[in-house]
Amino acid sequence: VARSVDPIERLILELARLPGIGRRTASRLAYFLLKGMSGKGAGQPSLAVDLAEALLCVAREVRLCAVCGNFCAGETCRLCSDARRDPHTLCVVEGIADLLAIEGSGSFSGRYHVLHGALAPLDGIGPEELRLDVLAARVREGDFSEVIVATNNDVEGEATALYLTRLLRPHLKGERPKISRLASGVPIGGELEFLDQATLGRALAERREI
Amino acid sequence: VARSVDPIERLILELARLPGIGRRTASRLAYFLLKGMSGKGAGQPSLAVDLAEALLCVAREVRLCAVCGNFCAGETCRLCSDARRDPHTLCVVEGIADLLAIEGSGSFSGRYHVLHGALAPLDGIGPEELRLDVLAARVREGDFSEVIVATNNDVEGEATALYLTRLLRPHLKGERPKISRLASGVPIGGELEFLDQATLGRALAERREI
Repeated sequence: VARSVDPIERLILELARLPGIGRRTASRLAYFLLKGMSGKGAGQPSLAVDLAEALLCVAREVRLCAVCGNFCAGETCRLCSDARRDPHTLCVVEGIADLLAIEGSGSFSGRYHVLHGALAPLDGIGPEELRLDVLAARVREGDFSEVIVATNNDVEGEATALYLTRLLRPHLKGERPKISRLASGVPIGGELEFLDQATLGRALAERREI
Repeated sequence: VARSVDPIERLILELARLPGIGRRTASRLAYFLLKGMSGKGAGQPSLAVDLAEALLCVAREVRLCAVCGNFCAGETCRLCSDARRDPHTLCVVEGIADLLAIEGSGSFSGRYHVLHGALAPLDGIGPEELRLDVLAARVREGDFSEVIVATNNDVEGEATALYLTRLLRPHLKGERPKISRLASGVPIGGELEFLDQATLGRALAERREI
């Protein structure tokens, strides 16, 4: 956005670059941010300045964790620094959003590795772009007995999972090393009637005895 | 928000202070703002920094127009500086959002005055808080033949309109000075079936011959 335009217009244009925020919402937000300046609310701390400082702080301090690829403010991220997490299980995900989703489920307490993408040779994304040698080295030098390949359940994700399986299996430790994928099936609370055929087919094929 | 917390968490908390943005959306936005930093998008200009600069620019440069009370970056606002606007019609509104809504309709090309509130004696908002003496002086010294009192259609708005009518009528110029309120009635595209009784009653009472 050009610097020469009206400051309010410029703020609206910047806000409208955010996902899910259109021109209309952006201008509502901009005027909310300006509200502190009209007579009544002049005393309150300026939200605009607070938000700007938080943004600059993030831009200045946040980088990618050297170990796992998650965002972090220091050298290694909060999850990598947490000694209570299981050092024998590694969960490989495509993006940080996936890591957050898995953390949100509260069902995993091992280590993570973020690929920042999936193999897509047609788009020029190969093993080098995902820095899979770094991941291989981490598994080789580490003490992992299980790798959960939690890439997406689509073509690229499956291809990446296959590639990772071959790449990582030789480096696993322990008596019964495992490489696993997340289970596929009917979502909790999901209604069979509205489920797509592929998922339903998979759920049937992988049915479990009760 | 405390400065000591994790930068990402701090950004999420600041974003969540915006209207209509909950914790979940705030964290989606925060991670979008951070995306520029993960491998792939490192080349693109940082949205976080652009947005921060736009916010600081607004906080530094935007103030209230000395004439009408609208936001402006200079001494007087864009609307007050526009010589093509009718200098004989004044539209009084409660807030800047109202001004924007009326401008958006494209049906008014006169001058504005923003009260930044409405009379509400029980909340301690009287004529002094709204600086109605400034408005009276503006009308007295100006050349207005019509004042449109576009305060809200609620108790405070109506009371304010009544007060303003008495305050401003003596200062109007021209042969047939007018003070007016916006028409009440059925919204365009509105269905009678779903309209509230008060509006429908008003629309009947103010019916017009065709």
